[in-house]
Amino acid sequence: MGKIAILGATGYTGTELVRLLNDHPETEIVYVSSETYAGSKLSDIHPQFSEHEDLILSPMGTDQVPDNVDLAFCALPHGQSAGIVPGLLEKGCKVIDLSADFRLKKADLYNQWYEMEHPVPSLLEGAVYGLPELNRGDISTSRLVANPGCYPTSIILALAPLLKKKILKTATIIIDAKSGVSGAGRTPKQPFHFPDCTENFKAYRVACHQHIPEIEQELGLLAGETITITFTPHLVPMIRGILSTIYLKPAAGQNEEEIRAIYSYFYGECPFVRIMEGHALPETRFVRGSNYIDIALKEDRRTGRLIIISALDNLVKGAAGQAVQNMNIMLGLPEDTALRQLPF
Amino acid sequence: MGKIAILGATGYTGTELVRLLNDHPETEIVYVSSETYAGSKLSDIHPQFSEHEDLILSPMGTDQVPDNVDLAFCALPHGQSAGIVPGLLEKGCKVIDLSADFRLKKADLYNQWYEMEHPVPSLLEGAVYGLPELNRGDISTSRLVANPGCYPTSIILALAPLLKKKILKTATIIIDAKSGVSGAGRTPKQPFHFPDCTENFKAYRVACHQHIPEIEQELGLLAGETITITFTPHLVPMIRGILSTIYLKPAAGQNEEEIRAIYSYFYGECPFVRIMEGHALPETRFVRGSNYIDIALKEDRRTGRLIIISALDNLVKGAAGQAVQNMNIMLGLPEDTALRQLPF
Amino acid sequence: MGKIAILGATGYTGTELVRLLNDHPETEIVYVSSETYAGSKLSDIHPQFSEHEDLILSPMGTDQVPDNVDLAFCALPHGQSAGIVPGLLEKGCKVIDLSADFRLKKADLYNQWYEMEHPVPSLLEGAVYGLPELNRGDISTSRLVANPGCYPTSIILALAPLLKKKILKTATIIIDAKSGVSGAGRTPKQPFHFPDCTENFKAYRVACHQHIPEIEQELGLLAGETITITFTPHLVPMIRGILSTIYLKPAAGQNEEEIRAIYSYFYGECPFVRIMEGHALPETRFVRGSNYIDIALKEDRRTGRLIIISALDNLVKGAAGQAVQNMNIMLGLPEDTALRQLPF
Amino acid sequence: MGKIAILGATGYTGTELVRLLNDHPETEIVYVSSETYAGSKLSDIHPQFSEHEDLILSPMGTDQVPDNVDLAFCALPHGQSAGIVPGLLEKGCKVIDLSADFRLKKADLYNQWYEMEHPVPSLLEGAVYGLPELNRGDISTSRLVANPGCYPTSIILALAPLLKKKILKTATIIIDAKSGVSGAGRTPKQPFHFPDCTENFKAYRVACHQHIPEIEQELGLLAGETITITFTPHLVPMIRGILSTIYLKPAAGQNEEEIRAIYSYFYGECPFVRIMEGHALPETRFVRGSNYIDIALKEDRRTGRLIIISALDNLVKGAAGQAVQNMNIMLGLPEDTALRQLPF
Repeated sequence: MGKIAILGATGYTGTELVRLLNDHPETEIVYVSSETYAGSKLSDIHPQFSEHEDLILSPMGTDQVPDNVDLAFCALPHGQSAGIVPGLLEKGCKVIDLSADFRLKKADLYNQWYEMEHPVPSLLEGAVYGLPELNRGDISTSRLVANPGCYPTSIILALAPLLKKKILKTATIIIDAKSGVSGAGRTPKQPFHFPDCTENFKAYRVACHQHIPEIEQELGLLAGETITITFTPHLVPMIRGILSTIYLKPAAGQNEEEIRAIYSYFYGECPFVRIMEGHALPETRFVRGSNYIDIALKEDRRTGRLIIISALDNLVKGAAGQAVQNMNIMLGLPEDTALRQLPF
Repeated sequence: MGKIAILGATGYTGTELVRLLNDHPETEIVYVSSETYAGSKLSDIHPQFSEHEDLILSPMGTDQVPDNVDLAFCALPHGQSAGIVPGLLEKGCKVIDLSADFRLKKADLYNQWYEMEHPVPSLLEGAVYGLPELNRGDISTSRLVANPGCYPTSIILALAPLLKKKILKTATIIIDAKSGVSGAGRTPKQPFHFPDCTENFKAYRVACHQHIPEIEQELGLLAGETITITFTPHLVPMIRGILSTIYLKPAAGQNEEEIRAIYSYFYGECPFVRIMEGHALPETRFVRGSNYIDIALKEDRRTGRLIIISALDNLVKGAAGQAVQNMNIMLGLPEDTALRQLPF
Repeated sequence: MGKIAILGATGYTGTELVRLLNDHPETEIVYVSSETYAGSKLSDIHPQFSEHEDLILSPMGTDQVPDNVDLAFCALPHGQSAGIVPGLLEKGCKVIDLSADFRLKKADLYNQWYEMEHPVPSLLEGAVYGLPELNRGDISTSRLVANPGCYPTSIILALAPLLKKKILKTATIIIDAKSGVSGAGRTPKQPFHFPDCTENFKAYRVACHQHIPEIEQELGLLAGETITITFTPHLVPMIRGILSTIYLKPAAGQNEEEIRAIYSYFYGECPFVRIMEGHALPETRFVRGSNYIDIALKEDRRTGRLIIISALDNLVKGAAGQAVQNMNIMLGLPEDTALRQLPF
Repeated sequence: MGKIAILGATGYTGTELVRLLNDHPETEIVYVSSETYAGSKLSDIHPQFSEHEDLILSPMGTDQVPDNVDLAFCALPHGQSAGIVPGLLEKGCKVIDLSADFRLKKADLYNQWYEMEHPVPSLLEGAVYGLPELNRGDISTSRLVANPGCYPTSIILALAPLLKKKILKTATIIIDAKSGVSGAGRTPKQPFHFPDCTENFKAYRVACHQHIPEIEQELGLLAGETITITFTPHLVPMIRGILSTIYLKPAAGQNEEEIRAIYSYFYGECPFVRIMEGHALPETRFVRGSNYIDIALKEDRRTGRLIIISALDNLVKGAAGQAVQNMNIMLGLPEDTALRQLPF
């Protein structure tokens, strides 16, 4: 049984890790921590976990993490993770970091977009970007995996086959993305206060969201060239789900069917990527609570554009589910262990 | 033109006052204040008010209220209102207080249920409980009106005719009430954070809600005897609306039709009370954004109980609308001025 | 491997059965039917089930059900079930009926409350009311189990210990219940059209809901006397969840702690009943997607009443989850097989 | 007092017309019709209108429309309107049609996108496209006004100044639009059934929505050239509101401030268009229930694109409010009469 630690277990991604690992036959949670609720039972903060009465929240800090932990998930805010990960690695455990701290290869991009100096830039190069569909091999041998952002996952998987095959005009990429509110985290703030948030729709951080460099880095690696995108995130009054609508021009006017065949082949061995057929379109409810990402391809014949639409659950494939998928790979387990729950 | 001040103009009841007074032909808002946003334009905090660019938020404190103000609304948290109202009265303006500070006649009840010493108990006796359907005369000559709570309004109006006529067994009253989230105010807190609040239903402050003594006081005055109630509030994942379901036994088994006739007569001259006929039942959407309260009477023949259901908009008839109704009466204007907007 | 048929697989309870059985190690679904979508793949109607591409929807009718089916779930509207169940029993398979058709022992009560003649009254006596916490023994040997209604489950389990112990005044029971919208089924109707349903709260079928005789029958069996209740259901703008608030007077003024001890003992061996401790109160989100029922007991000291609050997921413990729990018992499997998913 | 008829008074746009005209000092509703509810009181179908007990719903058909009607609103489905409008015009009353039947100048485009033969193509040329900000003069003298679609209003007003000034590359226009559910009308259908619709987000009619030719026609008239757009509509789980996010490249790299100045000047005399300043962004709640359209302009410096975001209430500025605005102009009244209600 793999021994697992979860740092930051009371936030939305932390609790989703607990939920998913509850069904995992090959691991057990031996340590949970929380800055805010240290000393409490996890089940007092989240009564749905009443079966796990034994899980007591430790204060943050690596010294309390048991020495026999095999793998630690860091579900902490960016900046905070980078301070803790080095200590975890020194203890000898593998680490999956769900923050943004180890996703960017270049520290100066981090400094610019996150508006702080990266605490341990020396670790950046060795960290593996944890998108299993693209980097399975590297993940399997890595000791530090940077779990991708929710928006980036929905976008990179939607574009990877086209970029790899070099059959799109990369300067034409425009991404209009929409996220449920859990993506903003569990801390109460005015824009997410129920009466201000429900029955409302808005764009935010237009053309300046911090996920832009992460998306551009990974798209660029796939394409073998520098990619610059337009990216607009929006807030949807629902708990879970991201739907990204992506606009671009194919390089040589390839049609929908040709491109769909490329995608189906590209993701043939990937259990969580579903390429939609015919007129079917993704809806966030079709992936709710599951580790699937659904992708549809639609040709706009009147303008020659291709419209790609992807949907995932931001807390599962966009965070905790993908992290468990990475864990499975790092521990040599079947990639889909504990991730076969159907959408809800 | 009546000159109006609103203290606490950025909370939900404060902004609702601005919205309603915008349509009022006989008053103008000359002063708005906010502790949090002092110095800002109201329209910067609430962009829907872009037409009122001239309204600059003052810091709290009576010294800044212009001397020519005719009437001030205090839309402040309880405790805070009581500190400011005496200064306003000294200035010579009339006051409608929307907090709980002047609703209870007995300071010791206030001290017990609000867990603080009342700052100015001497003002309690002179304050008029601002339920126009019951106290129109006293309101018209009052200088300090205590605007009723949202739950109490929905309950007292639903029971008043029975109590006045002494045709119910008062010991049998049970009130199961349900409120939208705006009733909890505009300050972000964990239970009202969108992902924790939507797709959820719960009871809270079971048998210990601070509106209990206010309800019992007013029911007792109507009945001419001490009334003790069971009261359970619940939180509904919607912005606005209160629906109260009230259970009781009529004193002599009066039937639905007899009681409905009593209600229709009792509220014959009240433009905002609608007694529902036949099988029709209240829904909060039928009163949304309006100053109506809808009341239905249903006999449970199998048990001999009467079930009364009332619905109102907690921010309008349950707060700002009722306050404007009180203002109209205090200023000698038609009671329904600026309150004829239809449900939304 | 138990071979399972699901009749009515495209409605909300049918799809929930598919979702839950997907995780079941000892059964396989061999047959699904649908009147509306006969001939289609289940995964074309419900894309979340893309893994089950092989499930083709049969037209309704027992002749198409394979002979080797061990157990059939009928997730059909009332009236329709009663026409099909006899044929299933003749085939030799066990049946769990999720409609109301076999819950009432007396055909005349059925005729009165469901406004139609019961098609096969002779089967009523032999059917077992499938509430495992109360009838586990009878369920284990039954060939026809009537799966309880969602409201009745939330109410009967909340009252059973008091009734068995005869420590309440049965004439004082008042039940104010609130349900999410999935309880109304999957067929589109005006009251459940999104813009008419969201941001709204209402009572419906006040004192005349068809679950009343079912509740009274089971409460009466527990108490050994005739029970008559007041029951008011309400509609909450959320997908899943029932919260019932129950008012009553204990027979001899027993206090909260004494009664809580009785409940904890009574349900000591029941894995899905959680008695809440201290000040904790149920919320529907704490049971969402799970087979739990949470029950809290609150004394209203001022009036001597006891307030019991229960919460469950109407599609799981209130329907499909309870049906799987019954199936497990009927097939001699551990009662909680495939039902250990944590709340979502 | 202008005498007004509303054909199709029970749908969402019809009831919104009743709500808005209730506050109108210069008109009175003398006739309402409904195919479904003919013979009923309007207030029995929509209890919020209890004050208008005298409004009885007539069956559809022009013969029942009183001869003294000055102006008729047709709030009927497309196809149905075109059959009724000629009879209304013959009666001598002015007509504002809220369907799509008179918006397109070319009958063959109508036939293609609405998949039916236009019943009265001869009326198309004379109908005026009712966007007051652009066509005020023609509207004032027109007898038949085609009220614009909700999406088109949000898009045409957002692009008009750029097109008129010819400072954008028209081939680069991409429109990603999001609408609340009331835009789909009041008839219950599976995708809008509450449990299927809430907690969900999706695109629909990708690159084939019937509003495309209307948008292209009006943009083309403004630009003086043929315009072809990419347009993707999405469904947001909220009642009201449209937010359109529009991507394009300015012709000569004009910056945000220059373009904002052009917009502010262009709409200087338009009371319902608000150009947002600085970092402010539209949210649908800032226009909810009002006739405003909010427009923000954001430069994406990294790619040279301009992002325009507009928000309106689809039932007000996107339908009934704009219709009342047109009515005011046609009847020679101040354009904003009865439209000054603040956002809700």
